[in-house]
Amino acid sequence: MKGEVFFGKGMGTIKDEYPDIYEAITGLNEVVYTGHVLDYKTQKLIAIAIAASHSDKRATKKQILSAVSEFNASKDEVMDVLRVVLLTSGMPSFIKSVNILNEVFNE
Amino acid sequence: MKGEVFFGKGMGTIKDEYPDIYEAITGLNEVVYTGHVLDYKTQKLIAIAIAASHSDKRATKKQILSAVSEFNASKDEVMDVLRVVLLTSGMPSFIKSVNILNEVFNE
Amino acid sequence: MKGEVFFGKGMGTIKDEYPDIYEAITGLNEVVYTGHVLDYKTQKLIAIAIAASHSDKRATKKQILSAVSEFNASKDEVMDVLRVVLLTSGMPSFIKSVNILNEVFNE
Amino acid sequence: MKGEVFFGKGMGTIKDEYPDIYEAITGLNEVVYTGHVLDYKTQKLIAIAIAASHSDKRATKKQILSAVSEFNASKDEVMDVLRVVLLTSGMPSFIKSVNILNEVFNE
Amino acid sequence: MKGEVFFGKGMGTIKDEYPDIYEAITGLNEVVYTGHVLDYKTQKLIAIAIAASHSDKRATKKQILSAVSEFNASKDEVMDVLRVVLLTSGMPSFIKSVNILNEVFNE
Amino acid sequence: MKGEVFFGKGMGTIKDEYPDIYEAITGLNEVVYTGHVLDYKTQKLIAIAIAASHSDKRATKKQILSAVSEFNASKDEVMDVLRVVLLTSGMPSFIKSVNILNEVFNE
Repeated sequence: MKGEVFFGKGMGTIKDEYPDIYEAITGLNEVVYTGHVLDYKTQKLIAIAIAASHSDKRATKKQILSAVSEFNASKDEVMDVLRVVLLTSGMPSFIKSVNILNEVFNE
Repeated sequence: MKGEVFFGKGMGTIKDEYPDIYEAITGLNEVVYTGHVLDYKTQKLIAIAIAASHSDKRATKKQILSAVSEFNASKDEVMDVLRVVLLTSGMPSFIKSVNILNEVFNE
Repeated sequence: MKGEVFFGKGMGTIKDEYPDIYEAITGLNEVVYTGHVLDYKTQKLIAIAIAASHSDKRATKKQILSAVSEFNASKDEVMDVLRVVLLTSGMPSFIKSVNILNEVFNE
Repeated sequence: MKGEVFFGKGMGTIKDEYPDIYEAITGLNEVVYTGHVLDYKTQKLIAIAIAASHSDKRATKKQILSAVSEFNASKDEVMDVLRVVLLTSGMPSFIKSVNILNEVFNE
Repeated sequence: MKGEVFFGKGMGTIKDEYPDIYEAITGLNEVVYTGHVLDYKTQKLIAIAIAASHSDKRATKKQILSAVSEFNASKDEVMDVLRVVLLTSGMPSFIKSVNILNEVFNE
Repeated sequence: MKGEVFFGKGMGTIKDEYPDIYEAITGLNEVVYTGHVLDYKTQKLIAIAIAASHSDKRATKKQILSAVSEFNASKDEVMDVLRVVLLTSGMPSFIKSVNILNEVFNE
């Protein structure tokens, strides 16, 4: 499914041991990333913004990696997302995300 | 400045009584909403997403109103933003934002 | 569906205008509240705890009302939930939820 | 005291260097986990839910370990708690907790 | 007890109906606001900062009112607290608190 | 600038690659830590409190280290800050910060 990379190894366990949960998540994920107007790329940038604004290092990294691999997002593009995080969520969330951004683009 | 409507009446006090803070915020706001790659509209949709994902009713309403007045955002467009909020932030944040969306588009 | 009362009016709009989202949420909701071991009542008390620990007034009230109407939860039962909120989330979340609890049981 | 394992090494320092704080926490902890109606097990499952819904890896792990050691909580039981986290708090909190659950039950 | 005004009416119910919880909170409150080095005023300003940084309108207002009534905090003093909130927690938390500050000092 | 140590390596990248953002942050930082009434030390203690109350390990450590190096903050002083965190934000945030405090003062 779209963005499968994001969910990581935990999702494997869910699929094997809790197929009812797996199916519900897959259904939800499909509906979420099939917007009526916005394209997938914009929605993924939004997902980066939400993860970063919650200071969620793991999700921010997964989402940035996924944006890079799925539609070749550039560093400047992600930084434009993080600019909004700086204004709305403060310096600690911003700097933490900038560090992750640097990690991703220096690897 | 861009998105001035968002800041509301509190910003008037700041301007009059604490001009140093006002100037710093204005400078920051300018830099934030002058992305290198993303356009202003995408950045504003991101700001809606962040406000909604934090269950912040006041900021979500301000940001949706601002998106409607500044570039005529449609209900479907905002709902595509809220889809990502549903997946990443859960039902309570999502439903709260849907209620605000309905308010804005029925006014 | 289970706990439908919780979702409130926003859910009506979703059902009418965004049936794809409605269906995904219904599917998820079903799976969530069909635990393998824990009963529905314990899961609903957990939902109260989560809402209260996030200081989410609207969701806390909806969840308490739903617990009262669906399985006749008592004030002491909900207070036992809020005790854990006090320890893990601090006084402001706790007192806010106590006020809601009082509202619900005095109405 | 109940759930002492949860507090970890920080609590040792508090006990030695800040006995006034230690005593107040001990008193609070006692009162919290002596519910009038709910049993200790239900309250501990609630504590897992709150930690997981806040994406707090450390507290989630401590609480799951404590539930396993104190009343032999099963993987399915904890997953029933996490189902509610999925609905109310979104995928990132859920997956993070599922990873911890897997760690605990594979150790 | 110190800062009793902060807790509001919910605290009355606790005192009457759940005296065990009341006593534990009172004990904790006493210990918290009896710092070894910092004075009560500094600790109360810190409590304002925490409430404001969590966008908690009710707690922010209670804490500001309590700071004004207990040691005559000035508007500038509270604004100096909110400056730190602006940097660390972003514009929405800051503006919400500025609005409350204005309410308190115009009443 | 004041508190530069806090921002860490991410700030270097910003300075080199996004000088517009760097300048806006520098301007904001200057204004924030130039309170009209409160001294820098009180403002930095407030910054510790905010970081700790959000369970932000990285920011809490940076802020404590900065308080120690910039004005020789003592363990008791920081603990007086963390007392308020205990009451307002709960045990998990408190214990996490106590662990960091111990790390800093044992290094």
